[in-house]
Amino acid sequence: MRLVRCKYNSAIRWGVLKDSRVALLKEPPFERIIPSKKSISLSRVKLTVPAEPTKIVLVGLNYRDHAAELNMPLPIDPVIFLKPPTALLAHGQKIVLPGGVDRLDYEAELALVIRKEAKNVSAEDALKYILGYTCLNDVTARDVQKKDGQWTRAKSFDTFCPVGPWVETDFDPGKSTVICRLNGAVRQRSQTTNLIFSVPYLVSFVSRVMRLFPGDIISTGTPPGVGAMKPGDHVEVEVCGIGVLKNSVVSENKAKRSHR
Amino acid sequence: MRLVRCKYNSAIRWGVLKDSRVALLKEPPFERIIPSKKSISLSRVKLTVPAEPTKIVLVGLNYRDHAAELNMPLPIDPVIFLKPPTALLAHGQKIVLPGGVDRLDYEAELALVIRKEAKNVSAEDALKYILGYTCLNDVTARDVQKKDGQWTRAKSFDTFCPVGPWVETDFDPGKSTVICRLNGAVRQRSQTTNLIFSVPYLVSFVSRVMRLFPGDIISTGTPPGVGAMKPGDHVEVEVCGIGVLKNSVVSENKAKRSHR
Repeated sequence: MRLVRCKYNSAIRWGVLKDSRVALLKEPPFERIIPSKKSISLSRVKLTVPAEPTKIVLVGLNYRDHAAELNMPLPIDPVIFLKPPTALLAHGQKIVLPGGVDRLDYEAELALVIRKEAKNVSAEDALKYILGYTCLNDVTARDVQKKDGQWTRAKSFDTFCPVGPWVETDFDPGKSTVICRLNGAVRQRSQTTNLIFSVPYLVSFVSRVMRLFPGDIISTGTPPGVGAMKPGDHVEVEVCGIGVLKNSVVSENKAKRSHR
Repeated sequence: MRLVRCKYNSAIRWGVLKDSRVALLKEPPFERIIPSKKSISLSRVKLTVPAEPTKIVLVGLNYRDHAAELNMPLPIDPVIFLKPPTALLAHGQKIVLPGGVDRLDYEAELALVIRKEAKNVSAEDALKYILGYTCLNDVTARDVQKKDGQWTRAKSFDTFCPVGPWVETDFDPGKSTVICRLNGAVRQRSQTTNLIFSVPYLVSFVSRVMRLFPGDIISTGTPPGVGAMKPGDHVEVEVCGIGVLKNSVVSENKAKRSHR
């Protein structure tokens, strides 16, 4: 099932997407999913980020083939970092290259959305705490990342966390393919069988640090092949079995002018 | 003026504290501060964290004397990181030492609370965006920090961000003293004249990365003298002109037992 969040009649609503029609939900989908009988054409709604996270937790190096590419040893524990909610960006919206940033990179990732409060859960139980899966682009100012050493600033600029287009509830995170295309050309491609830390392991690991709430997002790391984007570029993150998250890049000055 | 957030009649309310009495506010204090005429004795309310941040932004090395202590060069830009809202802890509550963490450190800091939405503000304008100032303890699992390299996990455990006891609106961040006491003995003490990056500079800097909202917290870094705490310890962060934030430490197992 594809869960969307969308703007309809100036309110933000959850819905179920099927055959280009959205059946709005009577309540957020965390406890139960009750679609209304009436459905709306997808063309009449505007998709927004399919979650309202209090926390967005991401993981560094988590693909064996990415570690091999970087000539780095496999990590013993996941290395986690946070993006602020202000970094979120919906499918179709523009990634803004901030003034002063020289190198802006894409990082295609499989992400998951938490369904219910989770603290100290075991990996065995972890899947029960997941609502579903989505695509995430861990946009990174690579020059800032190198300068700071710490990753937070480089990954926290507004618009640096595209997520969507929807949450797929019927998905096996253990056998999927994650792809990044830049202007139509494949730049990243790997299988989730290459994940060093599995989805259930990550949920358990993060829940031992911080209490997770419905709507919180955990992203699972990026495959080899990260690289630069420039204004005007179109970037797509595809997770096979979920869908394709599409965004384009614009420079900060141009973004400002278009808001005048 | 001392702004408190407190639990009263099972609701969380903002108030103004004066002479051990709390005058509840008719609305949150971000646009205007309208105290009701009736006041309640401080002993009848329970203080909570004096903000509801969507983001808690902290700064690494920001005291000249701390840099000297560590024998490190002064940073060119502030190095920022985030704590999740789940790390927040009120004055008087217990810091929980997680199982598997070997070394738990205090870091006394001056923090500020944002009053209104801020994006790309200049340092000259920055003070207009600040509601007031409070004390913050950047609790850190030092062994985890060393292991990970990235600071996020080490600083993000639940209860690792005590903030309070209130927000002082009438305060000059340029000339204050930040003190940490462990079991009554002074362990950290420095003046904000030693700050490498001033409060207005930090607000401007962070607002160029991420849009700030009312209630968001920025903390300004810690003086020399950080060190370890163990279960049973009492830790105080004092910022002269604001007040004293007091917490004690408990081990995770003991915390669990006391919730049964």
